[in-house]
Amino acid sequence: MTADSGQLWAVVPAGGAGTRLWPLSRAGSPKFLHDLTGSGRTLLQATLDRLAPLVGDRVLVVTGVAHQDAVRRQLDSLPADQVVAEPSPRDSMAAIGLAAALVERQDPEALVGSFAADHVIADPEAFRACVREAVEVARSGLLVTIGIEPSHPSTGFGYIHLGGRLEGFATAHAAEAFVEKPDAERATAYVASGEYRWNAGMFVARAGVLLDLLAAEHPDLAAGVRTIAAEPDRLGEVWPGLTKIAIDHAVAEPAAAAGKVAVVPGSFGWEDVGDYAALADLLPERTPGLKVLGDADDVLALDSTGLVVAQGGRKIALLGLDDVVVVDSGDALLVTTRARAQEVKAVVEALKDSGRADLT
Amino acid sequence: MTADSGQLWAVVPAGGAGTRLWPLSRAGSPKFLHDLTGSGRTLLQATLDRLAPLVGDRVLVVTGVAHQDAVRRQLDSLPADQVVAEPSPRDSMAAIGLAAALVERQDPEALVGSFAADHVIADPEAFRACVREAVEVARSGLLVTIGIEPSHPSTGFGYIHLGGRLEGFATAHAAEAFVEKPDAERATAYVASGEYRWNAGMFVARAGVLLDLLAAEHPDLAAGVRTIAAEPDRLGEVWPGLTKIAIDHAVAEPAAAAGKVAVVPGSFGWEDVGDYAALADLLPERTPGLKVLGDADDVLALDSTGLVVAQGGRKIALLGLDDVVVVDSGDALLVTTRARAQEVKAVVEALKDSGRADLT
Repeated sequence: MTADSGQLWAVVPAGGAGTRLWPLSRAGSPKFLHDLTGSGRTLLQATLDRLAPLVGDRVLVVTGVAHQDAVRRQLDSLPADQVVAEPSPRDSMAAIGLAAALVERQDPEALVGSFAADHVIADPEAFRACVREAVEVARSGLLVTIGIEPSHPSTGFGYIHLGGRLEGFATAHAAEAFVEKPDAERATAYVASGEYRWNAGMFVARAGVLLDLLAAEHPDLAAGVRTIAAEPDRLGEVWPGLTKIAIDHAVAEPAAAAGKVAVVPGSFGWEDVGDYAALADLLPERTPGLKVLGDADDVLALDSTGLVVAQGGRKIALLGLDDVVVVDSGDALLVTTRARAQEVKAVVEALKDSGRADLT
Repeated sequence: MTADSGQLWAVVPAGGAGTRLWPLSRAGSPKFLHDLTGSGRTLLQATLDRLAPLVGDRVLVVTGVAHQDAVRRQLDSLPADQVVAEPSPRDSMAAIGLAAALVERQDPEALVGSFAADHVIADPEAFRACVREAVEVARSGLLVTIGIEPSHPSTGFGYIHLGGRLEGFATAHAAEAFVEKPDAERATAYVASGEYRWNAGMFVARAGVLLDLLAAEHPDLAAGVRTIAAEPDRLGEVWPGLTKIAIDHAVAEPAAAAGKVAVVPGSFGWEDVGDYAALADLLPERTPGLKVLGDADDVLALDSTGLVVAQGGRKIALLGLDDVVVVDSGDALLVTTRARAQEVKAVVEALKDSGRADLT
């Protein structure tokens, strides 16, 4: 990796099993490795495509050892040392912190921006405009997050409470607080107030600012990732001792309380594709009410609506079903409904309990 | 084929695509070739197993040329010349008539009994008791049918109207008339009257009686099958000219009107397995409300009821579905509901229309 002074580096955490997208997403082949939009690019590839106009190849992908080969294969033009393999999962702060420490050693003036590998964004240009503003704000020394305009009162995301507008920037606000996933009533109130944005885990800061904020709260963790960046050979020794904590709790919440966080509001069609209902929302209709991911010619739907994922190479015929979800991955088949999409996790648990962890 | 004078021969018409059981049943692999009960025996094999105590190997299976090899493979102990291949489908009268003519040439005193290859009977001993009585009645020169006690007012079967009891036999009645598949109102009235039985196409008669009844109504057809029986080499020449007509219309209806038909009422758990709802009724519950045909270990059902046919060797997970029908045949998958089971034909038609007749 090489860097010109003061530039933005993208840090792409590529983790998370996507359990609710079983049998498409597996522990051994998580959702970021899949093309879930029918674009021909996996979520990981699309994430880098989207960031390329901002960062070129200044990208660090942080992933589990189990996935590093698959990640490198999908990103074959990325230098191999820009895929950082975590020996074990230590949550998002260790992953992003290590990447920040690697960037910091290259260029103390550089900025880092974290962008998950498994999100979908409908309007990449609008997304990049937000990141550009976040970079401008971050140069002033703040930790900057991009706050997604809620499309509905979701109980599945954390929210960011907007504070006052920041002078000198087009859209940025102070971040009053980060709040946990709310219940339905609270979520409705948040959205109605207009003062809350979804927390999509997008943070932009100078690498040194991020690590110094971390050092103030979790000095061992900050020291640990800086040690590994300085002495990569000590990864295996230091990593297992790092505190397992999310970046939100480790840094964003305390920094917001201290007035050190800004929010750039964003509205660019963001989706974390958490379950099949979300996946269905992303896809175009093939016929009224019917979404297909995979070869549409494999699907014959009579008087049926819902989502069919056809990746098994076999014909799938539906007759008289409303809002059904049928996912054929080849070695496994899921049939459920859009309304139960959130509960697919329970299938994965039941498979493990029945001794079929090999399928999860 | 060899015969002792006056014995019963079983004639087993093995035809019909079983379209409503797609994708299990195909034109190239119709339902009689499949084990639909999980017994380890196909419907065809089970039919011969059930008849063996009555007829030994005095069986003629009449099937399409396309299926003769599969039939011979499944019935490997049956002499090859007892599988009669129809060059083209000419409906049930030609098939049964040809078998009767072949039996008649062997033994003018022999009886024939026709029993479809794709029915399921829960109580074979009760079935055989009915056939034994039918044979006794048939020896008197009547055409005898076995009339199934209706379990519900089905609109899917023809009915037989019972006449008065026949003297000298345990349960036989005269057959007043054969009536077509009724509408729901009429079916309800039939069943409520207690005077109607389902017509399952089971006919027992002396071979000569059956052919003479046929000769009286359709002399060309009777002559045609007798010609083929006498000169098998002329099959290809004579067969295509035979009248295409069901045995009910050709013989049973006019003979009943002439007082020449008897009915032996039967109650032995008969099922023609016409669709997946019927198939589900046949199978034992694996868990409350869930029926599985195939490897039950392949099925994981959470909060779901219905039928799963697991023949693709892959895991099938259901979540939150009521009365669903999922059929995985390997190269094709059907998802529907028990309520729509009758409409599976429409899927087969749509496949043909879309150029995928190869899957039907």
